Amino acid sequence: MPLWRIFHPENSLTQEDREGIANAITESNHEFVHIPRFFVNVFFHEMPEGTMFVGGKVTTNFIRIVTDTIAVAMPTTEMRAAAMSGTEAFLAPFIKDKGYDWELHFDETPRDLWRVQGLIAPDQGTEAAELWYRENKPVPWYDVEPILAR
Amino acid sequence: MPLWRIFHPENSLTQEDREGIANAITESNHEFVHIPRFFVNVFFHEMPEGTMFVGGKVTTNFIRIVTDTIAVAMPTTEMRAAAMSGTEAFLAPFIKDKGYDWELHFDETPRDLWRVQGLIAPDQGTEAAELWYRENKPVPWYDVEPILAR
Amino acid sequence: MPLWRIFHPENSLTQEDREGIANAITESNHEFVHIPRFFVNVFFHEMPEGTMFVGGKVTTNFIRIVTDTIAVAMPTTEMRAAAMSGTEAFLAPFIKDKGYDWELHFDETPRDLWRVQGLIAPDQGTEAAELWYRENKPVPWYDVEPILAR
Repeated sequence: MPLWRIFHPENSLTQEDREGIANAITESNHEFVHIPRFFVNVFFHEMPEGTMFVGGKVTTNFIRIVTDTIAVAMPTTEMRAAAMSGTEAFLAPFIKDKGYDWELHFDETPRDLWRVQGLIAPDQGTEAAELWYRENKPVPWYDVEPILAR
Repeated sequence: MPLWRIFHPENSLTQEDREGIANAITESNHEFVHIPRFFVNVFFHEMPEGTMFVGGKVTTNFIRIVTDTIAVAMPTTEMRAAAMSGTEAFLAPFIKDKGYDWELHFDETPRDLWRVQGLIAPDQGTEAAELWYRENKPVPWYDVEPILAR
Repeated sequence: MPLWRIFHPENSLTQEDREGIANAITESNHEFVHIPRFFVNVFFHEMPEGTMFVGGKVTTNFIRIVTDTIAVAMPTTEMRAAAMSGTEAFLAPFIKDKGYDWELHFDETPRDLWRVQGLIAPDQGTEAAELWYRENKPVPWYDVEPILAR
């Protein structure tokens, strides 16, 4: 459900780095947003030299993170600031502490235009949502397609 | 106008699959949304092994579809649910029926921040829109740049 | 802050073209939007033959620009139209005048879900924003993390 895309210069992240970043994102989202692990998609895009520009100049030291959150509820200013600070904290060992420059932003996309394995995902807090969380996979939870009244 | 991006593991889709998917998307959008075929952009991103993570683990069997709809009118709950179900139906032969896991979401972006071949696209239902639909190309339809009052 | 992504067929843009486009975008954004140059990210995605479809057909002559503006203020219809026309004008020498087909759209993403080098960017018009503009780098401008009241 959140889709994380990491754009990085070629040869800048090892496979071990990728695994560490994907794990940090997944566990953090799982724990703090209370979503099933399988909701979390993390894709790495290795960018060939000469294809990333910052301020009009080629960069070889910049990692850019772009996230589609697909409208998990972040209604308050405090929650939104906490989401950003939390993200910075768990990414730091892989990016900041290794001397890279970086930038990140999230987009929020409409929840009703989202399907997982063909299914509408249950609303958070419902019994079906807890089932998906526990089973860590999309389990059919309705017989006919519900009309979403939201 | 809609921009469809298909992220898939390397070696998972053949060129024939790509053509089938691009055609299914284009014809469905053309027919049900009544837009010119040339509005429909479909890009395939083949992801090297070890760059796609789901739930913190590398996946080699997952296809992820991300669509920017650029605000074609989907004002009602029913239309939005139908768009998703229709998409699932026409993609199934290429993805679900072949045993892949998959997920998709749409984003809606502002229509007034969109240009095709340098032109503002005419509103749906107008004579100019029908001209674009019939000709299947962007035809100049105004002499000076209109101020968009919406 | 704006993230520009340029999708282009393989062998369609030279490194000199890339530099020209990145520079045109950066200088235009810097001058007209009054943002520091380092805010401007421009990434080029060279697409292998057979991966870009327009209207259901493979294209080898199409350049697609996708921009996340991250909510710089464009409150009026006139400003939004001017942003699009300005973009068309500065890109024309690299795309239109070379005979490519093209299309572009912008998305606007939430400003409070954005961090640069771990920092909240100062609001435009503030002293801190002018400092970032002048120094062309992210300068710490607060001691403790502010709660964003917007």
